[in-house]
Amino acid sequence: MIKQRIAELKSASGTHSPSVATMLKEIPEMKINVDACFLSNPYATDLFIQHLEKDLILTNKLRDVLEFYPPQNHEVAKSVSSILNISPSNIFVGNGAIEIIQAVMHRFAGKKVCVIIPTFSSYYEFVQPSTEVVYYRLQKENDYQVDVKAFASFVQKEKPDTVIVINPNNPNGGYIPFSDLQWLLSEINFVSTVILDESFIHFAYEDAAYSYINNQSLIAAHDNIIIIKSMSKDFGVAGLRAGYAIMSETKVNALLSNGYLWNVSGLADYFFKLYGDKQFLEKYHEVRKKYIQHTNTFFQNLATLQGIKMLPSKANFALVEIINGKTSFDFYIDMLVNDNVYVRDCSDKIGLDGDYVRIAARSDEENTIIINAIVNATNI
Amino acid sequence: MIKQRIAELKSASGTHSPSVATMLKEIPEMKINVDACFLSNPYATDLFIQHLEKDLILTNKLRDVLEFYPPQNHEVAKSVSSILNISPSNIFVGNGAIEIIQAVMHRFAGKKVCVIIPTFSSYYEFVQPSTEVVYYRLQKENDYQVDVKAFASFVQKEKPDTVIVINPNNPNGGYIPFSDLQWLLSEINFVSTVILDESFIHFAYEDAAYSYINNQSLIAAHDNIIIIKSMSKDFGVAGLRAGYAIMSETKVNALLSNGYLWNVSGLADYFFKLYGDKQFLEKYHEVRKKYIQHTNTFFQNLATLQGIKMLPSKANFALVEIINGKTSFDFYIDMLVNDNVYVRDCSDKIGLDGDYVRIAARSDEENTIIINAIVNATNI
Repeated sequence: MIKQRIAELKSASGTHSPSVATMLKEIPEMKINVDACFLSNPYATDLFIQHLEKDLILTNKLRDVLEFYPPQNHEVAKSVSSILNISPSNIFVGNGAIEIIQAVMHRFAGKKVCVIIPTFSSYYEFVQPSTEVVYYRLQKENDYQVDVKAFASFVQKEKPDTVIVINPNNPNGGYIPFSDLQWLLSEINFVSTVILDESFIHFAYEDAAYSYINNQSLIAAHDNIIIIKSMSKDFGVAGLRAGYAIMSETKVNALLSNGYLWNVSGLADYFFKLYGDKQFLEKYHEVRKKYIQHTNTFFQNLATLQGIKMLPSKANFALVEIINGKTSFDFYIDMLVNDNVYVRDCSDKIGLDGDYVRIAARSDEENTIIINAIVNATNI
Repeated sequence: MIKQRIAELKSASGTHSPSVATMLKEIPEMKINVDACFLSNPYATDLFIQHLEKDLILTNKLRDVLEFYPPQNHEVAKSVSSILNISPSNIFVGNGAIEIIQAVMHRFAGKKVCVIIPTFSSYYEFVQPSTEVVYYRLQKENDYQVDVKAFASFVQKEKPDTVIVINPNNPNGGYIPFSDLQWLLSEINFVSTVILDESFIHFAYEDAAYSYINNQSLIAAHDNIIIIKSMSKDFGVAGLRAGYAIMSETKVNALLSNGYLWNVSGLADYFFKLYGDKQFLEKYHEVRKKYIQHTNTFFQNLATLQGIKMLPSKANFALVEIINGKTSFDFYIDMLVNDNVYVRDCSDKIGLDGDYVRIAARSDEENTIIINAIVNATNI
């Protein structure tokens, strides 16, 4: 039975969802029409592919990118240095943010790590066996938003070596405003390493113009911060594997001293060059804002639906509680089997109290299909 | 002066050569006509690009490969399992062999590592600071070939936790025949981890038909072996970042337990699927044999030249001693500046006694240019 096979496949993927390609390979009779598990701006992918075609395919330069060794880590860092206004000696580029999370958690986490839950599971799964993990549990009655005062007190009491803050948070999209974050970082400045994961920051905003929130200034004030940035979500290029981190020169040198030599592929190097190009970035910010607008419309529609409760989000996805008595797994299966819409069942997420699915905003057309599928799944 | 700037750039790249792209970016007035530093089969790149165009570009599937998350490590392992005749649970795929070298040296090296020198520098540079490295020095009078009896005695005396054997060896191309390797592995079976780096094995042969040497059978007899395989050289796809390793299931699970989640890009996943395809592999073996034939012609021509001495090689490159009194750095600069041919100055390689450059075999046409450049450089 398809439900059983999906459950097995999900279990084989650990605390992550199997990709659509893996699902379709293992269960060929299944159809997936909309991948609302996938947290990515499709308009940004369009923009990237347009540039790639012009720069690499029409010019036949794609061969060079695939044939030759990419530049070393510190060379790639130079491509993004000026756009970030950060010295290349403070930049570590990664084969996706996940490689950086692994590197940092293996190398700099220390003896005790403080993780806010619910969270992205790799932050506690990738610690060394000797590292203790303490969990700060977000409260359901507070919609899983971070209360920075309560959190600062927790950190001051627990005195961990490392604190992880994902902003906006995954899986709920909860957002700590810039001024609160600034206050929090000052309060926990005694912690050796504060990891600030900004993989979804391009979807957050604090003004009506959806201006980009630049936290890089915080680095100058706090040299214990490591900013980790995935490029997969906002630029829509998960298959490339591209991410970067900003950290102290000492930490960059420690990582490069015995590894990470050619960890960025030729195509990811091309992407980082584009990212460092002001003209490309201008076009990118247009599609970023367009996607935010479409996401907001999607969220407004989600909020009106019966049988579910959407939590406030400043990311490109919403955490949705199923409140019609159905389990999240059954809801997920119904959406997948009946309407071919793939969402993220969050029943494996620690720190959630209830039945939740995470639903990504996609293109305008796909969002309509997702809304209809939710209506169907809540009515069965 | 250009010589000084090249020296600075080389120094900034550590114990590796700066890529041609990096050289041209930093010294724009420089020209590089033939990259004989680059150890790669250009005919295999042609074959890969042909498939990529047909499968991904003409079908517009390239977008999917770049947009979506690639499958997880254990899923990619399935693609190559049947072609290797090895269970996927014994396969770890890497973002290039260099990621695997790093993973294995950080994780499984133990307290004492035995490295044969001259070697690929990452094997001793990537060890943890607490790991002792003992060097087994190959002898110049023996053309830096491994004497397996002497080496087995050395290992039995030193009792290291880990032994590294690169076959064919880099930078000299020295080759341990299959029967000798089999004998050596039995003699040092008491060592916890034996790393067998086969990144150049596709260029080696023991019969007139250039049949592929399959060492995978050794795994069944010795569960302490880790076979590491780069795909960059033989398949001509260094920009992709693709490699794999065969090791015990315990070791694979240890690595995957806290990392390496999505370490293979979408394009590298496509490559591994091709590699697992018998029809593609048949075509590949044709271009592999063609390249070996051209390499042999190149080696025969090299051997006749005055002022240099070529060492015996079963890889796609030759280590060449400069015996006309010139330093290897001057020889390297002369080839680069006068004839725009880029070779590998080996003056930074530990374990070499004399002035050496490493010269890669390229296409037939490029090999002719390289030979002429050597003639010029030895006559100045």
